[in-house]
Amino acid sequence: MSTLVLLFDLLGTFVFALSGGTLAVRHRLDFFGVLVLSCAAAVSGGIARDVLIGAQPPTALADWRYLATAMLAGVLTFYRHQSIEHMRNPVQVFDAAGLALFAVLGTGKALAFGLSPFAATLLGMITGIGGGIARDLLVARTPVVLQAELYAVAALVGGSVVATAHVAGLPQSPAMVIGALVCFGLRFMAIRHGWHLPAATPPDDQR
Amino acid sequence: MSTLVLLFDLLGTFVFALSGGTLAVRHRLDFFGVLVLSCAAAVSGGIARDVLIGAQPPTALADWRYLATAMLAGVLTFYRHQSIEHMRNPVQVFDAAGLALFAVLGTGKALAFGLSPFAATLLGMITGIGGGIARDLLVARTPVVLQAELYAVAALVGGSVVATAHVAGLPQSPAMVIGALVCFGLRFMAIRHGWHLPAATPPDDQR
Amino acid sequence: MSTLVLLFDLLGTFVFALSGGTLAVRHRLDFFGVLVLSCAAAVSGGIARDVLIGAQPPTALADWRYLATAMLAGVLTFYRHQSIEHMRNPVQVFDAAGLALFAVLGTGKALAFGLSPFAATLLGMITGIGGGIARDLLVARTPVVLQAELYAVAALVGGSVVATAHVAGLPQSPAMVIGALVCFGLRFMAIRHGWHLPAATPPDDQR
Repeated sequence: MSTLVLLFDLLGTFVFALSGGTLAVRHRLDFFGVLVLSCAAAVSGGIARDVLIGAQPPTALADWRYLATAMLAGVLTFYRHQSIEHMRNPVQVFDAAGLALFAVLGTGKALAFGLSPFAATLLGMITGIGGGIARDLLVARTPVVLQAELYAVAALVGGSVVATAHVAGLPQSPAMVIGALVCFGLRFMAIRHGWHLPAATPPDDQR
Repeated sequence: MSTLVLLFDLLGTFVFALSGGTLAVRHRLDFFGVLVLSCAAAVSGGIARDVLIGAQPPTALADWRYLATAMLAGVLTFYRHQSIEHMRNPVQVFDAAGLALFAVLGTGKALAFGLSPFAATLLGMITGIGGGIARDLLVARTPVVLQAELYAVAALVGGSVVATAHVAGLPQSPAMVIGALVCFGLRFMAIRHGWHLPAATPPDDQR
Repeated sequence: MSTLVLLFDLLGTFVFALSGGTLAVRHRLDFFGVLVLSCAAAVSGGIARDVLIGAQPPTALADWRYLATAMLAGVLTFYRHQSIEHMRNPVQVFDAAGLALFAVLGTGKALAFGLSPFAATLLGMITGIGGGIARDLLVARTPVVLQAELYAVAALVGGSVVATAHVAGLPQSPAMVIGALVCFGLRFMAIRHGWHLPAATPPDDQR
């Protein structure tokens, strides 16, 4: 199982890094800026989780494979920007897969560190959405996760499957698979069918 | 005393969350975005403090009552936005109370973790102003605390009362009450009478 | 050696604080805002490093001399803004020196905490560039380090000299001196001759 988890973790890292690299290219950052945004998008969520549960140094810094994967994605984005823009829809699907995986893995790691199911679910969500927030803040725009359709909610639902199984004493591996599938499914349907939460409608003159 | 502290802590959490929710509604974020900004404004300061003193996991994540309180405020803001805008002045007063309480409680917790009075006062300030900074960064604007009248300075003064009493060996509870009243008084007078620090005046062409 | 390191560390703190204070004045922040940006620019990198390696509380908060140095620079910037703007080029040189010193000291501290040479080099870079990122985010602009010539790369190269010497079992002090000189030299030449990395060129309509 552990090798499989690592493999999926690196896959999630890769696709999140693509999203960061693409944004950097659009903002005309230089080669280093593209690498930084790729890495920030890929590892910020996991680093935030590890700092918050006291698991220092964070895995994403201690294990070189995470940043190497993120940088590979950054280099690809820099030199093959056109091709990646063309497969935007596949990237969104991979991104949903990355979100699902990071959410359940993050929840599992927090549970293993003794956090309550409530806190662990939150940390799973932070693992999943942290990268996108860091990526957007670095180019000074409001994080899209705050505006997108069912993004963080899907992460919460996926993580809560893992946390609930933990409370019920059920085995963790199948719970993670189910949680990831539920999260991925929710996010995928939200993209496909434009599902979204109601938006607040302030009077026009107040902003 | 401990129950009273928790009660005031949750009250401070609630009013800070109102400020985050109101900003989110003005930026037309969706329901989830309103909840996130409410939570960010309410708990970021305490989380930063706990990470900086090595008290992981942060209380605001480990104890569900903090986020439940912040989310309640967020839901209220989403569905009752008009009413909350109308009581803006009461909110400012509650916000000053929250600042005062977070500053003295933050200083006290840092002292309890063995930090120096100097560092503890700083951590009290970070506890008090961190939420507002996170809230403003998430919508990509310069934090108002950097521009507002005597906001962080009031937190520093309140925290230094607690730290000074600690150095002098005086009992902590009355020092916290006095520190909170001094901080609240300073902030309240600054709002009321427009007290502010001198602003720098750069030549117009340099920005 | 230790006193010399502290001296250079405080010198780096001072010049980084000048860069933060100058930016704050240009954004017309008040006196407190200038102090905050000075401190944020000077100590954020070191605080991030200490939190990431689990060395809490961070040195920059626990030892009052760091923030006192940063505040002194902030006060100077506030009252002597014109003079500091006039010596912009000397500031850039000092800034390069600060970057070099923070990068090698950060790498050394991470190695002392048992991190791998790979992770330690990254933490050296974070120590060097973290302050500039925090400074720019606080006024809601894209961090210049993401756009500047060979800034973070110079920090990586300097840190890798220290990490390589550590792996080879060579003495640390000369490695730090050489690493700092290499980092400073790279950055200085980049400023002097406009060296930069290639920038990505997205089609105009995609941003």
